[in-house]
Formats: sequence, C-alpha cells, structure tokens
Amino acid sequence: MNNFEFCNPVKVVFGKGSISRLSTLVPVGSKVLMIYGGGSIKKNGIYNQVVEALKSFNVIEFSGIEANPHYETCMKAVELVRKEQITYLLAVGGGSVIDATKFIAAATCYEGEPWDILSKGGFIKQALPLGVVLTLSATGSEMNERAVISRVSTHEKLNFASPAVFPKFAILDPEVTYSLPERQVANGVVDSFIHVIEQYLTYPVNAKVQDYFAEGLMKTIVEEGRKVLQNPHDYDIRANLMWAATNALNCWIGQGVPQDWSSHRMGYALTAQFGLDHAQTLAVILPGVMAYMHKEKQAKIIRMGEVVFGITGETTDELVQKSIQATEDFFRYMGLKTRLSEYGIKEFDLDALVEPMKQRGWKLGEHGNIDYKVAREILMMRL
Amino acid sequence: MNNFEFCNPVKVVFGKGSISRLSTLVPVGSKVLMIYGGGSIKKNGIYNQVVEALKSFNVIEFSGIEANPHYETCMKAVELVRKEQITYLLAVGGGSVIDATKFIAAATCYEGEPWDILSKGGFIKQALPLGVVLTLSATGSEMNERAVISRVSTHEKLNFASPAVFPKFAILDPEVTYSLPERQVANGVVDSFIHVIEQYLTYPVNAKVQDYFAEGLMKTIVEEGRKVLQNPHDYDIRANLMWAATNALNCWIGQGVPQDWSSHRMGYALTAQFGLDHAQTLAVILPGVMAYMHKEKQAKIIRMGEVVFGITGETTDELVQKSIQATEDFFRYMGLKTRLSEYGIKEFDLDALVEPMKQRGWKLGEHGNIDYKVAREILMMRL
Repeated sequence: MNNFEFCNPVKVVFGKGSISRLSTLVPVGSKVLMIYGGGSIKKNGIYNQVVEALKSFNVIEFSGIEANPHYETCMKAVELVRKEQITYLLAVGGGSVIDATKFIAAATCYEGEPWDILSKGGFIKQALPLGVVLTLSATGSEMNERAVISRVSTHEKLNFASPAVFPKFAILDPEVTYSLPERQVANGVVDSFIHVIEQYLTYPVNAKVQDYFAEGLMKTIVEEGRKVLQNPHDYDIRANLMWAATNALNCWIGQGVPQDWSSHRMGYALTAQFGLDHAQTLAVILPGVMAYMHKEKQAKIIRMGEVVFGITGETTDELVQKSIQATEDFFRYMGLKTRLSEYGIKEFDLDALVEPMKQRGWKLGEHGNIDYKVAREILMMRL
Repeated sequence: MNNFEFCNPVKVVFGKGSISRLSTLVPVGSKVLMIYGGGSIKKNGIYNQVVEALKSFNVIEFSGIEANPHYETCMKAVELVRKEQITYLLAVGGGSVIDATKFIAAATCYEGEPWDILSKGGFIKQALPLGVVLTLSATGSEMNERAVISRVSTHEKLNFASPAVFPKFAILDPEVTYSLPERQVANGVVDSFIHVIEQYLTYPVNAKVQDYFAEGLMKTIVEEGRKVLQNPHDYDIRANLMWAATNALNCWIGQGVPQDWSSHRMGYALTAQFGLDHAQTLAVILPGVMAYMHKEKQAKIIRMGEVVFGITGETTDELVQKSIQATEDFFRYMGLKTRLSEYGIKEFDLDALVEPMKQRGWKLGEHGNIDYKVAREILMMRL
C-alpha cells in the first residue's frame, strides 16, 4: 500500500425525508444563494421541499446551471453573490450543479483571474461555505473536493480540486431520484461504476481494504443498476445506488493505491466538441483503455471480471477478453452506446479530439504513458 | 437501509515515516501534553521519533495510562492540563491511551463532575483538541469519537461518545507495530474483527455497500491475521491490518444498519472484575451471543460464514453451526481462549458478572432483548 494523507469532513444526511433537516444544517443568519439547474426540481417537488425548509432564511435563487456547467454561467453567479453579499451557497442538483457551486464558492474569494483556478491550478486560499441537496446520484461531487467546469468560448473542459470546497453537508434522499429520466439514471450508474474502476483497475499494490471496498461498490452498482430502470420506485435499489455512487468518489477507496483517470480526461474533449454526456464518453472510452492497456492492467481486469461479473475461463487471454466484454455489455445493458461511430464520430475527427491533450502535454494513466498519440490509437479502437 | 446522519472529520496520515509529519499537524504555538502508557514507546523508538518531530514545540509529558484506562489516572492528567495551561493533547499509543486522551480532553472543559460524562451521559459542549500517533491497531479509536474508561474504586467500565473528541489527525505508521508483543497483536486482530461483527451480524436491511464493506474488512482481518504472527515484519500485512482496524470502527460501515454491541457491553464486567483483556472478553462471549441468537441472526451468520470462512453445508442448521465454529476457531488460531473456565471463572461467578447490567437495566442487542438474565444464560453457555 502506498502512503497517503486524507480527510473528508463532509457531513452526510441520508434517507427519506432528510431535506427537512436543512433548517438545522445551514447556519442561522446565513444569506443563502440557492443554485440549481433547468427547473426540473420545480416539477418533482424538491424545490418546494427546500423552500419550505429554508423559510426562516434570506434566500436568493440562481438557476440555469447547465449539464457540464459553463464557466460563463458560473461567473454570472459570482457577480450576484458579490452584489447580494451572499454568505452561504446551497447546491440543489446533481454533479453539474454541485461542481458549479464549488467553482462559484472558490471564484468569489479568488484574488486573481478565476479561470486560472482551472487552467493553471491556481491555489484556493478560501471559499464560501456550501451545502448540497443531491437530486441525481452519479458524480460523487456531493462528498468530495473536486469539480469540472467547461468554457464554451474555447471548447475547454477542465477540473480543479481543493479542500476549501468540500461541502459542509450533503443531503441524500433516495426518494428524490424516483422521477429522474431513464437516461440520467443510466448515466449515473455508468459514471459511478467507472469512478470505482479509475481507482481500482491499475496494478495491484496489495491494498486489501481498498480493493475489497472497490469490488463491493462495483457489485452493488451492477446488481442494483441492472434492476433500477425496471423498478424506479424501489427505495432500497435507489438507496444502495445513491450510497454506492457517493462512496465511489468520496476518495477513500483511492487512498494508498495508484489511479488512472485517463478515460475521464480523454472523455472531456468528446463532451466539449461533440456534446456527449459525461457518462456516454466513459462508456465509449473505458473498454478501449482496458483493451489497449490489458497487459499493464491484467491482474486487476481478471479479478474484477471474476468478482463483479462472475467470469470464468481457461486462459489469461480468455479471462481478460471476457472481462472487458462483460464491462461493455453492462454499459449497453444500461442503454449506453459504446462506439464513437454510434455518435457519428469518424476517424477524421480524432486529431481534433486529442488536440487538447497534445497542447497540454498530458500523459495519462497510472504509468503516465498515454500521450495524445496513444489516446488517438485508443479512440481509433472505439470507432 | 435506515436513515443516518454522520460526519467523520479525522485527517488520516498513513504510511511508513509519517510520524515526521507531526510538526505540520500540531498547530504552531501549541503547548502540548504528550500522553502515553507504560514506556514501551521508549524501547521501540517511537518516543524518540515523536520528540524529534515536536522539537520546536513546548511539550510536557504524562505517562502511565493503563490498559483499560483508569478514571483516576485521567483525572490526574486533567489537573496537570489545567495547571500547565495545555492547549493541545497528543495521544501516543493504542486504544487505551487514545480513549484516556479523549476523556482528558472532555473532562478538562466539563463544567460539572467529570464522572457524569460516563455514568450519566453528560453533554460535552467542548473539548481540548487532540491528535493521535497510533502504536497498536485494534480499537479504531484513532478515527472515532468514542472512548471507554474504567473506575477502579467501583469496578465500573463505561463508555461515552461525542463529536467534540474526534482526533484532529491520526498518524498511522504500520512499521511501529512490528515490535508489538504477540498477545497484543492477536488481541488487536480479534478486537477489530468483532467491531465489524457488531455492526454487521444482526438482521439484513438490504444495505449492500455497508455489507460488502464489512465483509471486505472481515476477509482482510482473517487473511492477514492468520499470517501476521509468523510474519511480524511484513509491511503489507501490517498496513492492511492497520487500515482494516481503523475502518472497522470509524463508524461508516455501521451507518444505516442495525447494530448489536452486546458482546462488548457484556465483556466490560469480565475486564472490570477478572482483569481479562478487552479482546479476551469478546472472544469468549461472541460465540455465545451468536449461538443464543442464531435464529435472529441466521441470515447474516450464514452469509458471513460463506463469504469470510468459505463455509458450505446442506442445511441451515449445519451452515449456522459451522459458521459459529469457524469464528471461534479463528479466535483460537490467534491464540485466544474462548471459554470462561479457561480463565478460572465458574458458574458461581456469573451473578456478579451480570450484576452491573441488572443495576443499570441494560437491554442489549439489536432487538433490545438481552437483559441480565439472558446475559447470564449466554455466559453459562461459555463456561
């Protein structure tokens, strides 16, 4: 096991009815900016629950956070925060709204040009406090210190991380996910599964707790993911998926082990240039990374296949191939496409897709050996 | 899954060489009370590492914390803390030293009679900040808000819990456990195993993440526990056991599931009246609780037997019996006794052993159906 140093101070409030706990979680006297997305929370009743719980607070609203939240939109919110002297941010939404809220929290207090936080790793000294009411299980952002923001004008999608943007609390009520569209649910299942993979599927360092935990999360996500679309109102399925997605990226399973976030990083350009959902990019790319890096990742691929998908076989090659296929089959079972060509993307497009990697000189993967050329080969395999 | 609300803000600093990180973890300008036990840290070099790391701080020492730390000893430390105007406590030890330090931290700031914290659940408004250098993996106290304290004059052993006594940081260096006596290592393995059991072995509530995590911890503890005494200097074994023991009682696996701490509570009297080590009491009592409550716990006993010990069998009864036997066998493999008679305890002693439960009116177990009479029957089975 590798050395590590980590703290995750997020208070989790889990279970049905827990939105009513808001009034005791937001500090008395706060001036709150409630941040949300396109307004679906007004249709499904979450908006009313939040407003009711916060009726004794001074609350201003900022809506219109997009999927893959835009830097430009966030900066409008920063203006409002400053103008209204907001003291507390409340994200009501999924990963995009939470990520946007984290960036708003940091950008408000940032002394230089806020884009530097994303493009240059600008150090975040402080941020406004923020809380979360989660409406969509997927990214784990509700219990971590990370965010991903897109800049429309330059087709860029970049991430940052800082302990200053850990949410103070995260309210996780599985019932609020009952009314989500199937596509979002399926995306969430695939996204959280791949978050586990990115912290698990490298080379073994004999970190038993982390490996068993990761396998437990993958088993939960596969078992419950296969059932959720047919049983949208099953509380236990929703609760297990929600808690698994949070644990998939609250960063504990990744402590002390090598990580490989190449599928995520390579996927950013697919979202920025072709508008694919985040999870859709992962479902296409991950099988390619597994296949291209099957020698480096062999031990873990075989173990994952056996434990999570029940794969058996005679030879190492057979076990590896079957495990990769089972992974792709699971994504397709959830309704996601797994080939670039299914999104109309052709070989002609690949150079542009790896151009951001070339410009930034990224070398991805647990061995740092996926540069833009290797990335192109991997994408080529996924046409 | 049941509702829950939880936060664990402890910063974990894990790995070889991590004691040197102390100087950046204790706030600059702190007046530190370094609290430890009988002096073994002076023999194995840990004392020197800590003193070296804290050389720029004003440090006073308080040694002599006993196994099953005494209220009387803690109160002497409280006097010293007040007299010397200490601002930061540093526990250097295992569960006993950490628990004592938590009580000292709370008692120093407590306005009433400090014993009330233990005997009457007195509310802890604030406590001195404390940090931990762990020297023995077992209790999980390094990453939780709980402590158990014994009062010698009244033969009582009681626990308390408060978010105010979460350590600010916990330094976990597996190498410092290389030199521990076999008995302490074996005790630690059994103690941490049973911590998992107490949060797992009740009735199923379909909490998949918690169950898989608990099983992962039990597998780690059994696999590595079976090897550690023969391989005391194997870093990976020590690291896996250390991280498993911390996760066994950092309270995450117990969120949203029923718990049964009856083996712990029943064991307190065995320690207070007969001086058994904490883990020794658990190894004797747990198989009795499993056997007596085998109908209530049937589903989980069978699942645990299968997943952790590889038990197979034809009938439910056979699976249950074999699983209980495998659990007891594991304790014996680790060198612990599992019968009261092996400690010279006779039927004649049982009434006195359950007397504290009778006096306090405790009803233990996940169904609250283990009163002092049932406890006596369980102890009777363990003679």
